[in-house]
Amino acid sequence: MTTMNRRDLLSTVIAASAAASAFTVPSAKAADTAPKSEAGKGADKDVTKTLARYLVGATYDQLPANVRKEGTRTLLNWIGVAIGGSHEPAVNIASTTLTPFSGPAQASLLGRHERFDVMNAAFINGVAGHVLDYDDTHLKTIVHPGAVIGPAILAFAEYKQSSGKEFLNALVLGVETACRIGNAVYPNHYDIGWHITGTAGVFGAAAGVGKLLNLNEQQMIYALGLAASQPVGLRESFGSMNKSFNPGRAAANGIFAALLAAGGYDSSNAMIEAQRGWANTISTKQDFHEITGELGQRYESLLNTYKPFPCGIVLHPTLDAAIQLQRANKIDIDKIEKVVLKIHPNVLELTGKKTPADGLESKFSVYHATAVALIEGAGGMKQFSDRAARDPKVITLRQKVQPTIDPAIKPDQVDMTIVFKDGKTLHKFIEHAVGSVEAPLSDDDLQRKFFDVADSNLPHAQCQKVIDLCWKVESLSNVGDIAAAARASA
Amino acid sequence: MTTMNRRDLLSTVIAASAAASAFTVPSAKAADTAPKSEAGKGADKDVTKTLARYLVGATYDQLPANVRKEGTRTLLNWIGVAIGGSHEPAVNIASTTLTPFSGPAQASLLGRHERFDVMNAAFINGVAGHVLDYDDTHLKTIVHPGAVIGPAILAFAEYKQSSGKEFLNALVLGVETACRIGNAVYPNHYDIGWHITGTAGVFGAAAGVGKLLNLNEQQMIYALGLAASQPVGLRESFGSMNKSFNPGRAAANGIFAALLAAGGYDSSNAMIEAQRGWANTISTKQDFHEITGELGQRYESLLNTYKPFPCGIVLHPTLDAAIQLQRANKIDIDKIEKVVLKIHPNVLELTGKKTPADGLESKFSVYHATAVALIEGAGGMKQFSDRAARDPKVITLRQKVQPTIDPAIKPDQVDMTIVFKDGKTLHKFIEHAVGSVEAPLSDDDLQRKFFDVADSNLPHAQCQKVIDLCWKVESLSNVGDIAAAARASA
Repeated sequence: MTTMNRRDLLSTVIAASAAASAFTVPSAKAADTAPKSEAGKGADKDVTKTLARYLVGATYDQLPANVRKEGTRTLLNWIGVAIGGSHEPAVNIASTTLTPFSGPAQASLLGRHERFDVMNAAFINGVAGHVLDYDDTHLKTIVHPGAVIGPAILAFAEYKQSSGKEFLNALVLGVETACRIGNAVYPNHYDIGWHITGTAGVFGAAAGVGKLLNLNEQQMIYALGLAASQPVGLRESFGSMNKSFNPGRAAANGIFAALLAAGGYDSSNAMIEAQRGWANTISTKQDFHEITGELGQRYESLLNTYKPFPCGIVLHPTLDAAIQLQRANKIDIDKIEKVVLKIHPNVLELTGKKTPADGLESKFSVYHATAVALIEGAGGMKQFSDRAARDPKVITLRQKVQPTIDPAIKPDQVDMTIVFKDGKTLHKFIEHAVGSVEAPLSDDDLQRKFFDVADSNLPHAQCQKVIDLCWKVESLSNVGDIAAAARASA
Repeated sequence: MTTMNRRDLLSTVIAASAAASAFTVPSAKAADTAPKSEAGKGADKDVTKTLARYLVGATYDQLPANVRKEGTRTLLNWIGVAIGGSHEPAVNIASTTLTPFSGPAQASLLGRHERFDVMNAAFINGVAGHVLDYDDTHLKTIVHPGAVIGPAILAFAEYKQSSGKEFLNALVLGVETACRIGNAVYPNHYDIGWHITGTAGVFGAAAGVGKLLNLNEQQMIYALGLAASQPVGLRESFGSMNKSFNPGRAAANGIFAALLAAGGYDSSNAMIEAQRGWANTISTKQDFHEITGELGQRYESLLNTYKPFPCGIVLHPTLDAAIQLQRANKIDIDKIEKVVLKIHPNVLELTGKKTPADGLESKFSVYHATAVALIEGAGGMKQFSDRAARDPKVITLRQKVQPTIDPAIKPDQVDMTIVFKDGKTLHKFIEHAVGSVEAPLSDDDLQRKFFDVADSNLPHAQCQKVIDLCWKVESLSNVGDIAAAARASA
């Protein structure tokens, strides 16, 4: 359960890149077993049809081993954060509000005891998986694919008692669909104001559930068309419960689209690419080759990343540096004179809060993040709690943190120097922060994250059982076992 | 039950207008009892809040009499067409597909025997009300307000056993919300590719259900915010079942938004007007004064119109002329040599089919429409059936119809001359086609339409009962009576 193969692959495939505005992301990545393809022309005909045909024909057996593995990691990460978010106010409200309207108890809520019909369950689990802002990210598009496709296909697979192989294939294809469609319209679509996770994600949910329903090509075309009709989410909602509403509703909408298409409900054959279809209506950029090029060869799902820390990504290099220094050295905190940081400008702009009053505010403080990580050697939920924000030791140390902007520092980098009162120093430069495509979380990191985020809502042993089932998802005859294991007792 | 007051009002209020691209529509119209207001400045601050405050404070007692009346007519028209569409394939598929996932039997399907939870019922009734393309139209925006707000609030009012006064107030305010928001972004929003009925309509559904839920101002703001996050529908879907999907899903989404807001689920306070909010993201035009100006004084709901004929609006002047000639004269069809039409160019572009093979194709034939209306003195469902399209008498006469484009003819006009073999002629010029704002359907026309469209799905006496209940909706202590009366026996 290591990701060494993936790291090795990455180091050979990824070209040195120096995008200054975001973490560097390779534009395409070959799968283990597939030959690299030539970049094709940006076709704008039959986009919906070509994608649907691929989805219908794509089998589990065709998935390269590293793609299966990354799908499994996406599942594990999503389930952990969804359990972790399962008792947030937004989730409590959604569950209470929808109870009188729900259909039969077809699918489980993660980390809770209730069961709902598949669409309401998908919605609520979708809210839970995104509400902590701790989920996965396809950095090329800022789509959070697991947050939409996870709840849609898990709820439906539990209802339908799908096998692990069917499920993992649906997950990978759903992620592929959402991220490829996101690529086609990003960044313009996002810049305009759309929450791309809900607008591109709904296609992924429809595609994934469509696979579980074994749709034929025409039905899949219509499922994508009905999904195109239901984009969810505007960026103005960020900072409110409405943000996590978006992946939840996109998940439910995708199921709704796939079910109706399976029943014979029709749509256009060209909803993605037509003049008055999705891409042209919803974005000022359309690169359809991103959707139809190298299908089955280029896997966007390999570019999925998992947040190692429950805070904005700009803090991740700093946390990475502090944790590495703390773990590698026996640091006497009281003897620190100052901590000097060279940082990218975004860090102070987004996380410049010097005296955070509580756990929430501490997520916006590079001073807190540096201090708590040096003291505790971690940057998880507990390190961004009210307790940590008010810890006198943390408060003392955060006053010694001295960040300065350095134009040479890239967004996923930091340069940290601890200066002790006796003049000694410790230094760490982070080239790529942990959790980036270039420095992915290891499987062990993912498990640690799962426990960190989930075990306040489920007993430790139960978390371990869910983790074990996720790792062996391919061998399950009924994926409902995972959902059942992730339920809380009443 | 006449509309004389409304006609009189219209004739005095409406300025002479000569828009060539669409039916002429007055830009604002004063209500019976409200003073005319000065046009205010186009404020773009607190749009969502101002609208929400108005919605929360607006009571049934404040509604002018003509606004109540028009709301009642909107209800009657929508219920009739929804019963009429209730056994179309799209509706059958929706009902069958959603049955296993529905919650408790809270709300009735119109014209059918099934009952579903409120959101699924609203969806299915929403499909039924739009599937025939025979519903209402706010011509300024091409929003079909009844098609979204009707199913949302009827399903919810049945569940909640709301009174007729509450219901009518919710209907008017829902229509007002959808049409005002449509005004703010039309035509750019529609031209880009959005099906405005589903994108603006979802706000109306949320507002109407929000009234039935008695939301406070903050909750209403959030209901509008969650609605803004769920626009439905792209024009590329026109011509498929996906078109009628859009108002149905918008109705369900509006309920979903209002319910969650009632439960405490939050959103932004400025989802309509913020930089990355709805209007700026979804349109290149934003006229926020259309949303917040003259609230309680200017009623967009007075501009709602009802299709007199189940076909494209470009055919309506021709049908109007032919029906009036047939009713006023004893025409011997066999003695007609030719029928000369002077028409607007759109007519031949959209309905130029010379030899329609069946009922559906006959809706796109000005030749058929002229012939069948001259023979049968009507232009209802039966005149656009397979039977009518294949009637030898109609086929003979349609070959004698000679349309010519005349630049002087406006879109809601036609000039029709019947030339008989003996040289005599009959002539009719239509200044404004029946069903336009300037020549609205009378209450009797609306009843005739109801029977024409609905009585193949419900017995005549039952239709009469539903009609009677609709006319007296204000006096009902439980609006569920209408829904129950419109159900088919199992």
